[in-house]
Amino acid sequence: MGTGEFDVIEHLRARFPLVGDDSAVVQVPDGHLVLAADAVVEGVDFVPGCPVADIGYRAVLVNASDVAAMGGRPLHVLLTIVAPPGTDLLGLIDGAADGARVHGCEIAGGDLSGTTGPLVVSVAITGVVEGGAPVLRSGARPGDGVFVTGRLGAAAAAEYRLQAAWHPKARVAEGIAARRAGATAMIDVSDGFLADLGHVLDASGVGVRLDRVPAAPGATQEQALGGGDDYELIFTLPPAAVAPPGAMRVGTITGDPAERPVGVGGWQHHFT
Amino acid sequence: MGTGEFDVIEHLRARFPLVGDDSAVVQVPDGHLVLAADAVVEGVDFVPGCPVADIGYRAVLVNASDVAAMGGRPLHVLLTIVAPPGTDLLGLIDGAADGARVHGCEIAGGDLSGTTGPLVVSVAITGVVEGGAPVLRSGARPGDGVFVTGRLGAAAAAEYRLQAAWHPKARVAEGIAARRAGATAMIDVSDGFLADLGHVLDASGVGVRLDRVPAAPGATQEQALGGGDDYELIFTLPPAAVAPPGAMRVGTITGDPAERPVGVGGWQHHFT
Repeated sequence: MGTGEFDVIEHLRARFPLVGDDSAVVQVPDGHLVLAADAVVEGVDFVPGCPVADIGYRAVLVNASDVAAMGGRPLHVLLTIVAPPGTDLLGLIDGAADGARVHGCEIAGGDLSGTTGPLVVSVAITGVVEGGAPVLRSGARPGDGVFVTGRLGAAAAAEYRLQAAWHPKARVAEGIAARRAGATAMIDVSDGFLADLGHVLDASGVGVRLDRVPAAPGATQEQALGGGDDYELIFTLPPAAVAPPGAMRVGTITGDPAERPVGVGGWQHHFT
Repeated sequence: MGTGEFDVIEHLRARFPLVGDDSAVVQVPDGHLVLAADAVVEGVDFVPGCPVADIGYRAVLVNASDVAAMGGRPLHVLLTIVAPPGTDLLGLIDGAADGARVHGCEIAGGDLSGTTGPLVVSVAITGVVEGGAPVLRSGARPGDGVFVTGRLGAAAAAEYRLQAAWHPKARVAEGIAARRAGATAMIDVSDGFLADLGHVLDASGVGVRLDRVPAAPGATQEQALGGGDDYELIFTLPPAAVAPPGAMRVGTITGDPAERPVGVGGWQHHFT
């Protein structure tokens, strides 16, 4: 590795108070504890040569977004780096620490390992849902409105996915607001709006009638619908609920599971 | 991958009730929550061709052992698999599920990703320490006895580390017993007895006078001292404490940090 492993461990212990024993001992506020894990892999999620700080940030972002999609708040990050020789580990950790800071959580521990293969940054995250139940994918009901927390397609338009520096912030506050407004189902837009909405429809056994979705500046409607890496949230609200500020309505849930626009469905490789 | 990713996700959802949303919603008993993460990497922790079920088991084992070393009990496993094409994902997951069952914990979620490189299995774990404080590495005091929970060196003697099937069980019950007996410091033997004891001495600012350590059948004293992958526990107890059944005394903590046998020290790449 580019820096002595011992130096890196010392760096981590000095920066992150929870790091340094066999396990980290952590505090969790009252509420529902949620857990998720997601890895970013060189050649799959980013191209070789992508700045390591961006990779570290992104590994935390994608996990924070999974917590946000439950209506939760991120608490602790476990950061596992499997790195080929010459990797700038301190730069990568700085990026992850920046991601943790932006999302209000702490790096609690992790693992460092060498490899002869591509760089893998694997993150696990804890979060808490306070003052109510987590919002699942499975609660959408016919008549519910479908909302998004922001315009879509910016990442696709910028070809962010594999290359460009792009530091979106997971929609933690927006997810909490949606939950408090009475959201019946929620998911984050990582694979793409249509694919991720499809997961909600599948889990809820419902269909949807879509309006036009709000595209980010410079993004086509196609990029908004299928681009992915948006890290906005999709949620559903009963007809009587008042949508939180900033949320944009994009459609209505129907009782017919077969009713969905072409392209809604897909698959998803994250199993949290 | 060897099996359609969608099939694997369905398999996971069917087998593990917590899997299937953006995050897993979990329950934690009263006590201190502990978190750890550890990856196993092809070519580093195991040789290519090692049975995938053994790799899955091992990825859970090493994490359960980190929880055991705090005097805790494992609760939830997040399993992230970064696999080259052709990997038997279901076999690997079966091995991890076996590891979770043996250690009394649940697979709560994770991630699947492809790679052009070697197989990486990254696990994060939660655990709980009930009815008392977690045992850290830093509490050893002069006069404390040094104990191990079992004979050492079996893995080294069997050349387990990179090849052989070997399903040790993390010493969860023994760690809890050591904590209840009043253990002042504890660590698991993953890097090797001398290296791991060195971490306790460093963290506690003390030295040690060692007796002979108990070697496993077929293991040399050198393998017992330095072999690693034992997953026994080392702990320290005040002079007045009664050691739990099965624990073997191997030395005494001293007040001089410089007093340590040749080979005690080393480094460790796990930062939880």
